[in-house]
Order: sequence, then C-alpha cells, then structure tokens
Amino acid sequence: MADPLTIPAFLAMRLKQRRVECGFGIVGDYALRLFSDLFDEGFPIHVTEDEQGAAFAADAYARLRGLGVVAVTYGVGGLKVANAVAGAWAENVPLLVVSGAPGVKEAATDALLHHRIKNFDTQLRVFRDLTQAQAVLDNPATAADEIDRVITEVLSHQRPGYIEIPRDMVEVPIEPPRHGVRPHLPPVDEARLAAAVEDILEHLRGSESPVVHVGAMVWRRGLAADLIETATRAGILVATSSLAKGLFPERHPLALGVYMGAVSPEKVVERIEGASLILSLGVLNTDLTMGAFTARREEERLVEASDTEVTIGLRTYRNVPLWALLPAVAAAAEAEGLKPHHEESPYEPTFHPEPDTHLTVARVIAALDAHLDSRHGLIVDPGESLFASVDLSAPNWCLASAYYATMGYAVPAALGAGLAEPHLRPVVLVGDGAFAMTGLEVAAAAFHGVKPVIVVLDNGGYGTQRPMLDGPYNDIPALAPENLPAVIGTGRGWLARTEDELDAALQEAMETDDVAIVRAVVPQGDRSPALKRLTDALGRKV
Amino acid sequence: MADPLTIPAFLAMRLKQRRVECGFGIVGDYALRLFSDLFDEGFPIHVTEDEQGAAFAADAYARLRGLGVVAVTYGVGGLKVANAVAGAWAENVPLLVVSGAPGVKEAATDALLHHRIKNFDTQLRVFRDLTQAQAVLDNPATAADEIDRVITEVLSHQRPGYIEIPRDMVEVPIEPPRHGVRPHLPPVDEARLAAAVEDILEHLRGSESPVVHVGAMVWRRGLAADLIETATRAGILVATSSLAKGLFPERHPLALGVYMGAVSPEKVVERIEGASLILSLGVLNTDLTMGAFTARREEERLVEASDTEVTIGLRTYRNVPLWALLPAVAAAAEAEGLKPHHEESPYEPTFHPEPDTHLTVARVIAALDAHLDSRHGLIVDPGESLFASVDLSAPNWCLASAYYATMGYAVPAALGAGLAEPHLRPVVLVGDGAFAMTGLEVAAAAFHGVKPVIVVLDNGGYGTQRPMLDGPYNDIPALAPENLPAVIGTGRGWLARTEDELDAALQEAMETDDVAIVRAVVPQGDRSPALKRLTDALGRKV
Repeated sequence: MADPLTIPAFLAMRLKQRRVECGFGIVGDYALRLFSDLFDEGFPIHVTEDEQGAAFAADAYARLRGLGVVAVTYGVGGLKVANAVAGAWAENVPLLVVSGAPGVKEAATDALLHHRIKNFDTQLRVFRDLTQAQAVLDNPATAADEIDRVITEVLSHQRPGYIEIPRDMVEVPIEPPRHGVRPHLPPVDEARLAAAVEDILEHLRGSESPVVHVGAMVWRRGLAADLIETATRAGILVATSSLAKGLFPERHPLALGVYMGAVSPEKVVERIEGASLILSLGVLNTDLTMGAFTARREEERLVEASDTEVTIGLRTYRNVPLWALLPAVAAAAEAEGLKPHHEESPYEPTFHPEPDTHLTVARVIAALDAHLDSRHGLIVDPGESLFASVDLSAPNWCLASAYYATMGYAVPAALGAGLAEPHLRPVVLVGDGAFAMTGLEVAAAAFHGVKPVIVVLDNGGYGTQRPMLDGPYNDIPALAPENLPAVIGTGRGWLARTEDELDAALQEAMETDDVAIVRAVVPQGDRSPALKRLTDALGRKV
Repeated sequence: MADPLTIPAFLAMRLKQRRVECGFGIVGDYALRLFSDLFDEGFPIHVTEDEQGAAFAADAYARLRGLGVVAVTYGVGGLKVANAVAGAWAENVPLLVVSGAPGVKEAATDALLHHRIKNFDTQLRVFRDLTQAQAVLDNPATAADEIDRVITEVLSHQRPGYIEIPRDMVEVPIEPPRHGVRPHLPPVDEARLAAAVEDILEHLRGSESPVVHVGAMVWRRGLAADLIETATRAGILVATSSLAKGLFPERHPLALGVYMGAVSPEKVVERIEGASLILSLGVLNTDLTMGAFTARREEERLVEASDTEVTIGLRTYRNVPLWALLPAVAAAAEAEGLKPHHEESPYEPTFHPEPDTHLTVARVIAALDAHLDSRHGLIVDPGESLFASVDLSAPNWCLASAYYATMGYAVPAALGAGLAEPHLRPVVLVGDGAFAMTGLEVAAAAFHGVKPVIVVLDNGGYGTQRPMLDGPYNDIPALAPENLPAVIGTGRGWLARTEDELDAALQEAMETDDVAIVRAVVPQGDRSPALKRLTDALGRKV
C-alpha cells in the first residue's frame, strides 16, 4: 500500500507532471520540513544567495518551462520576493510562490512568533495584491484541490500564484484531489473566429509587404513553434516585442529583430511602420516595450490579436483568442497557398576589433553579437543593456524584465534558465548598477552547475538616467566584477577597456567551461545607438 | 520673498527638524526629480547596492536617530523594501518610506506604464498592510498636512509609514501646513499612575535582589539615559532583551547583559529568574527574544510595564505608559533614598589565543569581546550570530533584527549606524549565509565614508538550522569574503582558521582606518554556547 498522500508529495507530483523539476529558494525554520519532504519526493529547492535571486531564477525557469516555483519561509522569505512576483504579474509569468508558515496551532495562539508582521495573515494579504490565486493549505480535506485550483489559475491566466503551507500540515495525510489541474484557455466563439480568419486572409491577399509583430503571449500560450513554421512557409518578416525577443530566432532570414518604436534600428522601423499590414500577435502595448510610446502602427493596417480577442482595423471580434486564431490563420493561409513574400539571407554578425581603441556601447554590442552563437541563450537586464540589445541578434530566446523593468533580474535569471534549458549556456548582458544588486548570484549558478557568461556593461553608474537628470544619486560605488571569482571560488574574470581586449576576453569566455565574468568599461557619457535613437525621437516630438 | 513651498522642500525641512540628515535609497525615473530636489534641499539620499540594503540602513539610522528614511522609485523599488518595512513594523522602528510614482496625469490614463503592477494603487495597498500610516501626495492643498500626519503617526506609534509622491507633484507649489508634527504619546491616567508607582515602591522596599529587564520600547521612547541614571543610583542590576542589547552598556558594573531565557548564561538566568522582583520595562514577549519561550518569570514577582500600561502581579493599571512610569518611579525611589543593592566591577574581557588551535564559535566570541571597546557600536545578524552575541558584551548599543529575524540585516545596517552615530565605528557579526544575502553592501558603506569591521562567522551554511533538520537545503555556495576588497576596490580582508590568526586579524582590523573583513572559519557542526544552552533546555522540556 502506498504511503498516505501528503502536501509535499502531491505538490511535487503535480509540478513534475508539468516538467517542473526543481524550485528555487531559501529555507527557514517554518519551511524546513517542507523543503526536506520536497527533496525526498525528488523535488529539490535550489538555494541562492538571497530570496530575490531565487524568485528571479524561478521566473526565468517559468518563462522557459511554462511554470516555475520559488519556495520561501514565512515573512522574511515571502516578502523578499514581493517585487519579483509583482514583475511576474506584470509580464504574465506563471510563477508559483510556495511559502512555509507557522503551524495552524501556533497561529491560533496569536503569539508573537518570529517573522510575524501585523497579523498572521499579513503575508497572505500582500500576495492577494500580487497574484492571481492564493491558498492557505490548512485543511487536509481540501489541500489537494486547493493546489490544483491555484495551479489551474496560474496556467489559465499566466499570472503568479501563492500557496502557503502551515508547518504542522506538512506531514498530515490529505484527501486525494477531485478535479485535477484543468487550465482553461480564453473562450472561443467559432463563428467570430471564422469571420476573423476570413477578414485577415482578405487583408493578406492584397498585401504586398505584411509583417508579423509577435509578443510574449505567443510564447506563454506555447505557440512559438507554430508561428515560426507558419511565418517561414509564408515568407513573412517577423519582428518581436522586447518581451518576446528571440522567440523568433533573430538570425533567421525572415527575422526583423525587436520592434520597440524609435528604439529600433531605422530599417526595422521602416519595415514595420511602412508595412502593408501588421499582424500584431499577443503584444502588450506598454510605454517601455513601445519605445516610450514612439511606436506608430496605423489602425487601418493593423491586425491586433490579444489573448482574448482580435481587432482588425476598426472591427473587433470578441472571443477570438490568440491560441485559436494563430493555427486557424496558418491553416487557411496554407490552404490558400499564399506564396512567400521574402527570401533573405541569415544574419551572420562579425566583429573586427580596432587595436588600442577604447570601447563604446555600440562596439560592445557588436563584439558580443559576433561571439554569440546557437549554443547560447541570452538574458539582458533592464536599462541600457535592454535598449542596447535591440542591436544584438539572439540566436535563441532572450529573457528580460522588459516591461516591469526590475533591475538585477538578469544574473539570477541565468541560474533558472540554465536549469530549464541545460543545452543552452546563458549569456548575460547587465549594467554595473544592476550587477551591484544581484551579481553575487553568479555564485549560486555555479553551485548548481550553471556556468553563464556575464558581460558587465560598466558605464560608471545609472547611465540610462543621466541624460534625463543627472546628479550624485546616479553615482554608485565602483565594483570590479572581474575579481569576483576569487570571492566565489570559481570562474574567471576579464577587464576589457579596448576593442581587442574585449574581443579576446569574449573569445576566452565563450571557450571556458567555467563561470566567465567580462567587465567591459565604456565612457560614462556614452550611450547605445538604441538609446540615442530614442532620445532623438523624443527630442523631435518636443 | 521665499520660493514657493514644494513637497521636497517641506519634507526635507521636517526631517532635518528631527535630526534626520540623509536618507538611503536608489533612484529611478519616477523618483529622479524628487531625489534631485531633496539633494538641492540639503537632504541627500545615499545610494546602496540594492534597495533592500537601503531599507536596512535606514532602519538602523531610525533606531539610533529616532527616525529614518528609505527613498525608492515606484514598484521595483517600493516592493523591494517590503520585507525590511515589515521588520520595522514588527520591531517598532520609526522608518519612513518615501516613494516616487507615476504622475497623477499619467496614472489617470490607466496606461501600461513600466513598473506598474495590477493597478496604479497596488503598491499603496501593499504598504497599507505593512505600515501604520500612508499618504499619496496628489493634492497641493493637503500635501504638507499629509506629510505631518504620517510623521506624527510614525513617531506616535513607533511603526513605519509610507509617503508616495507622484512625479508631476514634485515641483508644484503646496499650501503650508496647518497643524505641524505633534506626536501623541500613549495617554496617562494620573490617579492610576500614582497608585502604580506606590505599588511598585512597596514591592521594591521589601525586595532584596530586584532586577530590571529592559526592552526596546525604553529605547524608542527616548528613556535610555533616564534608565541608566536611575539604575546606577539605585544600584539595581539591569538585563536587556535582545532587541535592546547594549541599551544599558554591557560592561557597566550593574549590567547583566541579555536575558533571553535559556539562551542566556546560567548566571544571568539565575539572577533574573531568582530575583525578588523583576521590573520588566517595555519588553516584547516574543518567542525568539524569550529564548523560544524558555524564559520563566513568576507572575507574583513581576512588574511588567508596556508602552501603554503596567501589570504588577495580578493587578493591571491601565493608561500608565512607560514614558510616564519610568521617571515617576525614578523620582519616587530617589525621594525615598533607596540604598544601592549592588556594587560590582566593570567587565573587562580578555582573550589569550592558543597557538595553532582551530577556532570554535565560543572562541570567536571571546576574541571579538576582547577586541571591542568604547569606540565601537555592535550589529549582529539573526541566527547563530544573534544567539552567540549573548556572550558578547556590547560597550555601546547593539542593533539586531532580534525578533523579526530577517537575515542579511547587519551589513547594510552598518552604513545607517555609521552615519547616524559617526563617532562609533560599526562592528558587525554576521554568518556566512546572511553575508551572502547583503554582504556586498559593505561597498556602499565605504562609498559613504563608513568603515565597518565585518566579522563573518563562517560555519559552512545555515548552521542554526542544521540541528533542527539537516539536508542539502542547508548547504550554500562557499564564499571567501576576505577577498571582497579586490571587488569593492577598498578595504582589507583576513582569513582566520586558528585562534592566533583571529587574534592578529582582529587586532589589525580594529587598527586599520579602512573597511575590514575578517572571515572566521569554525567547524560546520560547532554551535555557540548560547545555542547549546537553548538546545539543552528545549531537550529537557521534551
């Protein structure tokens, strides 16, 4: 006879059914038994330097695997991940928070137990504001159903969820689930779907230069492969939003890279804004991802499909969700035999260093572009790294907190990405300001066998903000990340001030089988071509 | 004619009136103008490595100055300090959060602006759960009054507060305040106060060996000097709670050190639990500060004074707050001419290293104790450092997250403490697990001219938890903090494995005028005498 079902056993089973093989987090006494039992169930929680790093790692894992778990102790652990969970909300990431808590019997005494805030439910109240669904597993009869309910809601809405487990519930036998995990996709109205598909096909038939602009919801709904297949057959150029960078591989002959309004290269802007038709698929219309709202997409040439509906010019078809629309349009186009619009060559970046020439942001990007290849996954931090990366071609996916824009995301994300897709080595582009926040998490990556390449774009402070308003608040303590290997006991570091130093450092960094930290020093006032384009465009608007 | 009043000008003035001369925080575009104007008003916001560090620094500043400020940008900044603010709530710290935010006009569009979470008020909702008072300064007519209201509530309740400033309000002229900051102390019932004082005096008269047990509320209400004066005149032995360690200087002839139940040395436990009378003043009765509730204080010999009332044996006198009671009892005792109970000698710790002998936690504590002197303020991190510090005599104050127990508090707190009391050099005792979380903040301390001595008690992982339940979740990436100076570009590091190495390292660390990082390696299974005493006592209870 099997052991009685417990919360950790059931939770581990459910997560593994979804290809989630580990979580990230830091233990504490309220979570000790939970972590221990999860480990015994074959579901390890990987330690990081700080809980913030664990949450960013889990977020990255979730983006790549479709679900991720950050596990924490009560109060001091839970609240340390509030910001990362808010970011997961903003960017539609299915991130599950699993928190230990005082026992039901302990909490009933209303005693001043350590890690308590106002009341024992304060943490739950905070996460009600930051997650889609919440559960406190204080009842053995409903615990399994509650886990299924939260996971169902997380997957259905692609938003974070919260599960709190009182420590005296961890080994209590629980009832089996009654319903299971049954994510509900946004509903389809078949008649409207058919009408919308016909409407889109009609537009496509007469269209000389249509383009696709693809956003994160295509990724979240698991439609990337479909999209690549369809676009390739139809020979349609594909741009992505910055939240979906690399979803369509950026060295593909049909890839336009990232369209972010004026942030993007002029060639991309012209192709998109001058297209006969823009098929916008699952793109969030946010200030940052639309280049401070400099993006210009004329309504009459825009098909905008969201997670729930599609708008074609002035007509909106309700209940025509992306997940149903994309395959339907693909099938219709296939049946119609639409001929390819474009035949282009794959992009093959090269870099020829000028000896003894000091680095600029533009040249750092060019060098990194040339050293990236199909073995790499890219992760970029918000700010200048994110802007600059528009001129960088991701051979595979690229992860970024591209809308919520929480600095310090990228280095810890490398751990999650490296475990989610072990066949790709994470390459991180991060500023010196963000590296100060979470750069030490590279130690956690190494500890768990992930060996990222970290390129620190060091412009001496909060460089993205200096053009807006400069003052001592943009100056930060200078660090020498290239010396971090002596602190973490593994890895190699390089300091590059010139083009040839950087080229050599990247060459060695890509070859080494260890953690590699390359600090690329650029002038404090230098800006990326992307940020210059944005500033120029905003200047023209004034 | 003076410039029109603005929010930054008014806020800076109010803070400086309270001896708050700087804040801690990280800028962002929603907070740029705010930081800039505060700087121009002579109120700089000091940058840290990450917002979490800024909040801990501000918390330490608040404990020492009576008010502290953490300033952040919206969303990504605000939510990063949620945990630290929760800790300030739990431990009665008057910490003010000042957050930038999207402009009133921007928010009215309901657009997807970066750093937005669910709604524009999500951050405010979270801080309603974590603070005593909140204000969004969106109205020029009431902004000054709202600032005064929040500061008043923060000081009155000794809890954190929250002020959000939309960026389009920063330079708008505002109306002058109508009421000012008028903290209200808990109310006094004069008749009950007189009765309580007489009751206490009656107990003291017949008491052979009374002791005082003093908690953080004595500190928060500014009664420390009174207490030291009174206890010294009356010759009464004084113990503190771990939240108030050092409030009564621990090398004073009458100091008993910290009473934390079974965690404390037997001599202290005997003196307290065997006392003819315990005068408990402003002590929080929490699991951790009471040594996992092992503290035994018999009701009939206990006078327990809280922030609002006093209980003498079975009798409670309502509306007899600490702030009124303590001076009244002191005056009455003085008038009565109570003769001193004790004449003892000041404590003068020494350490004689055994050559080539590997370190233990006990010997690290003994060595540190001997090297601490009146020029130092002590800061200890939760966990083993906190437990172990019970055997360490603080010559001045000691700061700790001793109840909320948020790991990683100590290193960033050194920055806040060093600026709040520049005449004392912060000496930090921190475990390797906590150092991993926030140890890099030592770079921010150095950047702002604070040169702490950091002693990293390295027991190879989460050592406090191993005796409870051990597994891979207690293992962490090993760091070599002694090599951090090469990363932060300043300071010196030492690795000590033996008693003589530690003695020499501490000698040099105390002498150097730079940041000093001493890593003291102890066996993984070794525990402090304090933790052993607790474990033994809990074992006996079972």
